[in-house]
Formats: sequence, C-alpha cells, structure tokens
Amino acid sequence: MHVTVTSPFWERYRGKVVDKVIPYQWEVINDEREIEIPDDPSGSVQDIDSTWSHAVRNLRVAAGDIQSDFKGFVFQDSDVYKWLEEAAYSLVYKADEGLQELCDRLIDLIARAQRSDGYLDTPYLIGSGAFAGRRPFTQLQQSHEMYVMGHYIEAGVAYYEATGNEQALEIAKRMGDCLDRHFGEEEGKIHGADGHPEIELALARLYEVTRDDRYLKLAVFFIKVRGQDPDFYDKQNAEIGDGSTDIFPQMRAWTHEYTQTARPINEQNTAEGHAVRAVYLLTGIAHVARLTHDEKLKATAERLWADIVRRRMYVTGGIGSTHVGEAFTYDYDLPNDTLYAESCASVGLCFAARQMLEIESRGEYGDILEREIFNGAISGMALDGQHFFYVNPLEADPQASRNNPDRAHVLMRRAEWFGCACCPANIARLIASIDRYIYAVHEDRREIVAHQFIANDAEFFDGIRIKQESNFPWDGHIHFTVTVPDGVAPAKLLIRIPEWSSDGYGITINGSESSQPAVRDGFASIGIRPGSTSIALSLDMSVRAVRANSAVRHDVRKVAIMRGPVVFCAEESDNVAPLWNYRVPSGTAPQSHVEYSANELEGVVVIKAPAFRLDDDGTEAPLYMNASRHAPAENAEELKMIPYYAWANRTVDRMQVWFDSDI
Amino acid sequence: MHVTVTSPFWERYRGKVVDKVIPYQWEVINDEREIEIPDDPSGSVQDIDSTWSHAVRNLRVAAGDIQSDFKGFVFQDSDVYKWLEEAAYSLVYKADEGLQELCDRLIDLIARAQRSDGYLDTPYLIGSGAFAGRRPFTQLQQSHEMYVMGHYIEAGVAYYEATGNEQALEIAKRMGDCLDRHFGEEEGKIHGADGHPEIELALARLYEVTRDDRYLKLAVFFIKVRGQDPDFYDKQNAEIGDGSTDIFPQMRAWTHEYTQTARPINEQNTAEGHAVRAVYLLTGIAHVARLTHDEKLKATAERLWADIVRRRMYVTGGIGSTHVGEAFTYDYDLPNDTLYAESCASVGLCFAARQMLEIESRGEYGDILEREIFNGAISGMALDGQHFFYVNPLEADPQASRNNPDRAHVLMRRAEWFGCACCPANIARLIASIDRYIYAVHEDRREIVAHQFIANDAEFFDGIRIKQESNFPWDGHIHFTVTVPDGVAPAKLLIRIPEWSSDGYGITINGSESSQPAVRDGFASIGIRPGSTSIALSLDMSVRAVRANSAVRHDVRKVAIMRGPVVFCAEESDNVAPLWNYRVPSGTAPQSHVEYSANELEGVVVIKAPAFRLDDDGTEAPLYMNASRHAPAENAEELKMIPYYAWANRTVDRMQVWFDSDI
Ligand SMILES: [Zn+2]
Ligand SMILES: [Zn+2]
Repeated sequence: MHVTVTSPFWERYRGKVVDKVIPYQWEVINDEREIEIPDDPSGSVQDIDSTWSHAVRNLRVAAGDIQSDFKGFVFQDSDVYKWLEEAAYSLVYKADEGLQELCDRLIDLIARAQRSDGYLDTPYLIGSGAFAGRRPFTQLQQSHEMYVMGHYIEAGVAYYEATGNEQALEIAKRMGDCLDRHFGEEEGKIHGADGHPEIELALARLYEVTRDDRYLKLAVFFIKVRGQDPDFYDKQNAEIGDGSTDIFPQMRAWTHEYTQTARPINEQNTAEGHAVRAVYLLTGIAHVARLTHDEKLKATAERLWADIVRRRMYVTGGIGSTHVGEAFTYDYDLPNDTLYAESCASVGLCFAARQMLEIESRGEYGDILEREIFNGAISGMALDGQHFFYVNPLEADPQASRNNPDRAHVLMRRAEWFGCACCPANIARLIASIDRYIYAVHEDRREIVAHQFIANDAEFFDGIRIKQESNFPWDGHIHFTVTVPDGVAPAKLLIRIPEWSSDGYGITINGSESSQPAVRDGFASIGIRPGSTSIALSLDMSVRAVRANSAVRHDVRKVAIMRGPVVFCAEESDNVAPLWNYRVPSGTAPQSHVEYSANELEGVVVIKAPAFRLDDDGTEAPLYMNASRHAPAENAEELKMIPYYAWANRTVDRMQVWFDSDI
Repeated sequence: MHVTVTSPFWERYRGKVVDKVIPYQWEVINDEREIEIPDDPSGSVQDIDSTWSHAVRNLRVAAGDIQSDFKGFVFQDSDVYKWLEEAAYSLVYKADEGLQELCDRLIDLIARAQRSDGYLDTPYLIGSGAFAGRRPFTQLQQSHEMYVMGHYIEAGVAYYEATGNEQALEIAKRMGDCLDRHFGEEEGKIHGADGHPEIELALARLYEVTRDDRYLKLAVFFIKVRGQDPDFYDKQNAEIGDGSTDIFPQMRAWTHEYTQTARPINEQNTAEGHAVRAVYLLTGIAHVARLTHDEKLKATAERLWADIVRRRMYVTGGIGSTHVGEAFTYDYDLPNDTLYAESCASVGLCFAARQMLEIESRGEYGDILEREIFNGAISGMALDGQHFFYVNPLEADPQASRNNPDRAHVLMRRAEWFGCACCPANIARLIASIDRYIYAVHEDRREIVAHQFIANDAEFFDGIRIKQESNFPWDGHIHFTVTVPDGVAPAKLLIRIPEWSSDGYGITINGSESSQPAVRDGFASIGIRPGSTSIALSLDMSVRAVRANSAVRHDVRKVAIMRGPVVFCAEESDNVAPLWNYRVPSGTAPQSHVEYSANELEGVVVIKAPAFRLDDDGTEAPLYMNASRHAPAENAEELKMIPYYAWANRTVDRMQVWFDSDI
C-alpha cells in the first residue's frame, strides 16, 4: 500500500511539520537554539537544565566523541528518536536529500553510541552526570530504559521503511536482541516490564518488519509480565537502597495502578494511571493480540478501549482528567477546566485506534480516530507549527490560570518547548504519518477499509487504486474513484459511515442511488470489480448540538457544538464577555450560520449559532440575589464559534466548549 | 451587658460544646486520648506525631516539670490556649467548678512555663526537639510565635473576664510587655509582623481590658508595619541561612501576598493569600480602627470586607477558593467542588463582622454574620460534637474525593481531629461565645443594636433589659420585650431587618402596626422609654431561590435554596442519584413544602422543593449523543433538602447546594 495525501487540510499540516517542526526541533535537540521552558504542567519538579536540550550531545558523549556529563531528563534520548521518526515519515511525502543525509549521520552516531551488546540509554552509559554508575535494568519503575529504546526501534523501523537504511534497522534489532537476552520467562532473566509502556508496541513493529519471532515473543512477555508480581518495582527499589539514587523519588509512593502493574493485564478492567502509559500499552496489547491471535488479549484491548472511549474521554478526544500524575481518575469524571488531556495521550489513542482497526472493522474505532485527528490530537500544535500545548482544556480562563493554583497547569498560550518535550514530537510524528491512518487492508480477504476521509491517491494489492477526493472536514462530499486492473479477482471496499451521519448519508455508485450498500458495524461494504467505479458519499454536515451521558456531572444540561467530526468552541475575542452567559438551545443549532472563512485561522469553517445571552449583572450588583426578585434578562444573540483545534491562536482570552442549553 | 442565650438552636450547640468538645479536646491535648489524623487537607506534609497531641506536655517541659523534646507543629501551644478560651466562655453560661479548677491549674502551669521576660512559645523555649536552639523572632514568616501568644492573650483575657483570675490576665500582660520591648518603630526594635496575623486582634482585646495604651500602640504598629518592607521576611530568612533550619521550608517560595505583606495595609485593595490570615488581620484592623478613630484604617477594613463578602464568598459564607495555600484566588472565582472554605476562615469572618458592627450599624455586617453562624461557621462540626471538617464544600462526591486528586482534600466525613487542629477549637470558641454576637451597644449615644436573632435575656446600661424570644432560624416571629426602669433617659433599639426579608417584614409595637419605624442601612430604629415595650417582628420565611451574580462562572444559571438565613442542600440519600440531574425552577421555589422535622438531624426544617429530574441515561448509553435525536426526558420530582450545616451526618453520599434552574 502506498498512500499520497492530497487533502488540503492535511497537506497544510504536513507542510508545517516539514517547514517548521522538523528544523525547529533539530535545532533544539542539537543545542543550536536556546529554549525557555514553562513550569512542568504536571507539577513535578526536577532540577534540569531549562535552556539547552543536550539530547544529541548525550549521544556524542556516549559515542566517545566528546567528554561531558549526561544532562537532561533520564528519557532525553527519546527526543532524538522521535525527531528521527517524524523525519523518516516526512521523507516519504517530501524528499529532502539534506535531511536524509542528516538522518544518516545521526544513525551513524547512534550506532557508535550503542554498546556492543546492543544496549543504548545514554544516562546509563555516560560515566558522569546525574545518573552515572547505575546498573542497567535495576530500577525499571523509573528508568525509562526500554521506553527510550522502544522509541528508537519505532524510529529505526520507520527510517528503514522510508529509506532502506539497513543500519537504522540493525541498531533496532541489536536493541531487541539485548532485551531478549535480559528479559523473559526463563530463569535468570528479569521478570519485569518498563515503568513506561512503549517497548511492547515497538517490538511488535520490529517483528512486523523483521518477522523474527523473538521480538514478538518478547513483546508478549512484556505485556503479560505486567502485574504478575505487583510488587516487582517495590522490590527493585528496595534493592536500590534508601532512595538516594531514585530517578523520580516521588514515584516510590505512587500506586501500582499508575504504571498499569497492579494486576495481570487480562484482569485489568479499567484504564488506570498515567494516561499516556495506558494508551501506549493498549496499542501494544492490540498489536500483539492481532499478531498472536490471542483472544483473551484481544478482549482486554476491547475492554480497556471501551472504558476509555465510552466513559473517560472528553468530547474533543482528550483523556486524563487530572494533572496530578497526568492521569485517569474514574468513569464519567470529566471536569472541563481542571483536566489534563495531554496532547500525547490523544496521539496515543490514535495509535491504539489504528491497531484496533487492524483487528476489526468497527465503526467506533474509526469514529474515535477521526475525533482525535480533527480535535484533541492536533489542538496541541499552534497554527504556526512552533508552539505546543501539553494540556488541552475544554474551558480556559486566563485569570484562572494565573490566579487559581488548581488551574495553573492550564496554559493559555502554547509554549515553545517543554522540559519533558514529549508532546511536540508526538503530534509531529502523527501528522507526518497520517497517510498510515486512512486505510486498513486485509489482502487475505481482499478487503480495503477506508476508515478516514482524508483525500489521497492510494495503491493497494493487485494494482487496485483508489483516489479519494474531498474538502473534508469542511465539506461532506467524499468521492472515491476505484480502479481495478483487468483480470483481478473481485474485492471489497468498506467505507466508514460516521456515527454522526448514520441517520443521514447518501451513496451513489456510478451515478446511481439504486443499490444502497449494506452497512454493518459502521461500514458500508461495496464490491469492486475490474474497471473504474465511482462512489460518491455525502455526509450530513448539519451543525449539531451534542450532549453527554447524564452520568457526566460536569456536562449536565449542556451541549457542545459539532459539525462533521469537528468540535467547535467559542473564544471571548469573538463574543461578548463572559462566555458563560451564553445559552445554546439544542433545537436551533442546525439553523446555525455556517461559513468557510479563508482568512481566519488559515481557513476554517466558522459557525454562528443561535443563542441567548444573559445580561451581565455588573460588579455593583450583589454577589447573591433573590432569583425571582432579580430575575436576569436573556436576549437572543448569536454565538460565534471556531474549530476547537484552532483555539488560542489569536488573543489570550477565555475559551469554552460546553454551553448551557435547554435540556 | 450580660446576655443569657435561651435560643433552643443555640442552647443545643452550646450544650455540645460543654458536654463533648471541651472534655474531648482536653483529653486530646493532654495525651489521654490517641488520635488518628487524616492527611492534611492543605496537602502540606510535615513529619509530626499523628497519634499524640503533646500540647500540654510541651508546656510542662517548658515549665521544667518533665524532660522531653518539643513535639508537634510549631504552633502546637495554640491548641491549649484555644481550649482555655472556649472553656472560659462556657463557664459564663455553665458554671463548672471542676472545669474552673482545671483551668486555674492550667494557668498556673502556663505562668511557670513563661520565661521571666514574658516570652512564651514552647518550641523556642524547649532545649531539644525539632525547633530547639533557635533565637526568638528571627524567622517571623514561619515561626508563629506571636500567633501563639496572641491566642494566649485572647484566652487569658476571656478567662479573666469570666472568672476574675488575675494571673490569667497577668500572663497576657507580660506577653504584651515582652513584645513591646522587642517590636516597634524605635531604632533597635524589630520592624516586622508575625507571618500569621492574630496578635493584632489579641492586643486590641488586651488594651480594652487593661486600658494600657502600649498594647494599642503595639497593635497599631503590627498592622502598619505589614508590607512596609515587603522583603522583610526574605531578609530574615536569608540571615537564617540555607534553609536547613526552616520551619516550613516551602514558605520561602510563597508570595508576599500569602502573608498580607506585599504592600502597606492601606494600599491593600483585595483580600489575598491565606484566608484565615486575611480575616484575622481584618478583625484586628477593624478593632484598632475603631479604638484609634483611624479613618484610613477604617476605609481599609471596609474595602477588604467588601472584597471578601461581595466578590469572594460562597453563599454558605465559606471563603478560600483553593486548597493550595488555603487561600483566596480572585474576584468571583467560586468553584463549588475544588474549594477550601476552611471552617476557621468562616469563624474568622464572624470575628471580623462583629468588629465591623462595633464600628457601624450596617445591615450587611449583620447579614454576613448571620449567614456564617447558621451555615459555614457551624457546618465544620458534626451534630455529635466530636467530628470536624476543615473543608466545607458546596458540592461533594465520595467518588471524586477518593479518585480525583484535585478533590482529595474534600472529606466526605468529619474527622476526629487534625494534625493542625485549628478548626475544632475555633468553632467551639465561637459557639461558646455566641452571646457576644447578638448585640452591639453604644452607651454614648444610648443605642442598643440587636443584629442577630438568637433568643436571649439581656441586661444593658441603666438597667435596661431585653428579652428576645423566637424559634429562629426555623420560625420568623421574633418577639422583643424591652424593660426600662423608671427615670431612665430615652434610648434607641436598632433591630436588623435582614436583606432577605427587606421586602416583606412586619413590626408591631405594643400590639400596634400604626407607627412603622424607619429602616436605615438595614436597621429599624425604635425609641424605648421607661416601662415595658413589646415589639413583634415577623420576617419573610418563604423559601427562596437565590442566584449568584453573573460574574460567578460556577453558579451561572443555577440557584441555591434558602429559607431565612439558612442555606439548604440536598443529599443523595434523600433523593434519586445522581443529584445533578435535578433542576429547581426559581419561580416555584416559594411553593416548596416546608416542615419542621423533630426527628431528623436533631431537629431541622426540611424542604421539599418542586423540581424536575432528568432521566438517567444509564451506562449502556453512549458517552456523547446528538442532543436532538436523543433529547433526555425530564419529570417533575420533589427535591428533598436539609440545612447545609447538617450535611454529612448520616450516610456518606453526594451533596449539592447549587442546582440547575430556569434562569
Ligand atoms: Zn506529552
Ligand atoms: Zn482551621
């Protein structure tokens, strides 16, 4: 399968990754650019250099090119690898000899930094600095060693796939071999998993490109060993000593749930702990379940998926309801202003959705992926491609961020960079590889699954080609031209009918509406035969008021406005302050004025929704009043709304997604 | 003035203080009772003994009776003094020889612990333990030395007034003398104030009983020195060294606003920082402003008062919108579920209201005092008199307290005690001295101001007697019998007309409604003459829906239900879960069913308000739905409500004050 993205929406984003994010991040990780880092939104404090990244420098030190201490977070290497991975993806859609040469040289450096046994984690290899003198794999709860190597493996595989660079793959294989020697069921090996899941999904990718069973077996091991001995980390920590050598001292006190090790994986029923860890693990579980046909593991993936997307996810796709531990809290607990909803967690949920779609063509998987890629997973990057959010609130107030410590982690402005710079590169690698998030292909049953509406030209098995044209998400007309060479056996094209359009969509095949394809599990199934088939799908793009399940305390009697997959929000700069005085009736939402505005926010649909606005009492009025004697007046007044992902790209002002309604 | 409380509501509470709180707290501070302490709701961690109080023991060590380390918080002494103060007040309404003897012996111990120069703070006096070897007054930001002595002075004055014990007063005077030698404008003296205001109000009380100008002058000094040099604490801290001897190391990083030292007092326009500190300081300011006729200081008191009660106070009287620093945040920021609203802060606002009432008969002062004493200031004590809240939320959910760290500080059950046991004794000393919160008397202008409806028999100047009868707050009929001896010059009785009844009240004087007294600034003024005058006041006790100013984001389009001064709340055990599904229209609130229920919660009025309840979607329904396609049904269903102060006395269940409405 080869997919060329032609969607204007995504071409713009992918251009930004090439033009802005990749060069910018290269400068940062090479200390060619000073960075100013805001306080860690998670509130955790570590004494790190907040001006220089030192990430590539650490590799040079490990390679023996220069002498220096290790500097940065213990997982600093991953910044380099995530940059390499996003660069690899970009080379697929935008050839760039200079960039490729840079990458080749970087891989060469990484190869030289790697120890002869395949181990590579610079804080452990460098003889001086905060983490010097530790023995590898002795504090898995905190060390992130396999997290870091997992990120290299992802990058190495991606770069090998993009360019054929064998050395890139070789490094990854040697890492896998190293881990295989140290970890596994066998006696004498270590029976524990990394405190931050990542290696599981990385090894599954390595297996898919190498077909070496050892990597798959190791991925299975890391998934299944999790929680077999819930005290594994505590025991390792105890051997380490009195805590003086802790990497993250506070982690000792954290629950086993935080690292998804409280119980064996098949006994985990809810998504607990650190949200990014949870979705990375879910991705690995789903991937491995498919590769090994493990029904129990598949059921676990489905169960954890369901808990997240049916009970713990914001309407924007954000996950993680508290900044304390950047974590999940409990079912239906979705406060809009004290949340975390880390960009990485939304990106990770995309990874998971993609793997779920590879297992089964279920509309929900595609729906959630779509919800993420048009909302929560991209809201973390500014339109300028150079500023990033960690936290993606559904309601923000500059005064609250400034003056209420409970909301201080909610930034009103995307930052240049972060001490723990996980989010920028994660968003970039998702966007750069978005071509991998459009189709699932099952050649065995001759099935092509088109689960996302991102215009593209694609080629599949047997020379089957699909041209998908649209101006989605602004326009709901999607046109597929399917070309099948003569003599090719019949195949099937599955097209997702989004849940939001399931009551109103139209399909014409070769200009005729006579034979409507059956829709099962959210997918319309269309037979394709030699020759050219023209399929026109029209989706219901009416503005709709969405409400939450009544179990969600923070959204009760409120609506969010959506059109297609896009969640809209209001910013105070477009409306009369304060935003909370607006009420948006659900019944009149479809009568909203909808207009594509080419000049605003690099081109967005703008909605003006019929609404009512309460009169402002003013500060001279009492704080509390008899509601009957002082009934407030309400006047009809349109509420201007913009796509959520584009908020905070103009003035610093209040923003709100959920509005009081009439329900 | 002597006032005997006869109100059934208050007699019950005052009986509890005598029967439960005083003996219980005595056992605790004497280590006769093991205590189990919950995590500090403010989240601050200190390594203190969580089983034994050690408070009286510290005094014994300081007195040389026994040998031991100092143990407990640096302000542990204040637990003893606040106990003494509440005991002193109780002896006024409930003579108890045994208790009085206990108090006398305690005062003797305190006298022996006091250093010859009048200084008394056991952590500084005891030669071993966490705080040993420090020099007095060298780290005022953190030491609480004057806070502790201030509490003794309050207690000593109260005990002297109650019993005539001269030694009690002598100790207080010697403390004042000691402070006078160390602090003041003069060169060589220390130009700083205590990090926790308290000494200001205490010295004002000491002045009123001794009429020694030095104490008043010193109170003025401590108020005016505040913020003159905003870096005063930083400089002292720097001299202390590298932080190894900090008492509360985290305090170094706190803002000057936290301790109300960011700017001179007359330039402080908003109530900032730690809420208890702010209201204690306000109390001192108001008291001193009145005693010194300082118009600027009076204006400051009025300004800070207005900022608190008009922009930063919950409908229950709670103050302090965040648990981080137990602090104020910003105007109109009143989240209902992540707040602090410390019991002590509400009690402190009563102190302030009382001082404001002494300055001026303004209805608002009486209204706010009333709001506190029937809601926020007493909700911190369980009906059993033995369990206490630090945090008084307006919305609580056991699942949130358990599983969302942002709300972990909100306890669902009052605790036996706290490591920092400020709240229990504060509530007790307010209740025990509630007779002081009913009248203000201005003999100079022959004016008696009846600002609270707490039934009592009272005697004033010239033998004037007032008998106030009512079953307030359950019943709105208040009867005053005023008896004036023959030959006494005319006087005036001012009776507060509460804001909530200002549109509907009736006054009959000697059975006649013909001459309605004028109402000014919330007070009806009635001339009283020799003989007996019978005054019947009837207040509007209809149930009312109260709304907040539109600037309060968290209460927009919601109502709270009140009747008279009492705020009502709903508990889930009385209603269908979840509570947030109820909607209470404002218009029908007056038609609520109101009933006094003698058997519930020791006798309360119970309200059944006309309401609507949304159908529960159930967990099988999607998380998000098209609001038009899946419009939720709403059915009429009464909402049972109980007085807010009585919540959490039955099962552990959700509680809610503000309800969605029709506004
Ligand atoms: Zn991140
Ligand atoms: Zn307190």
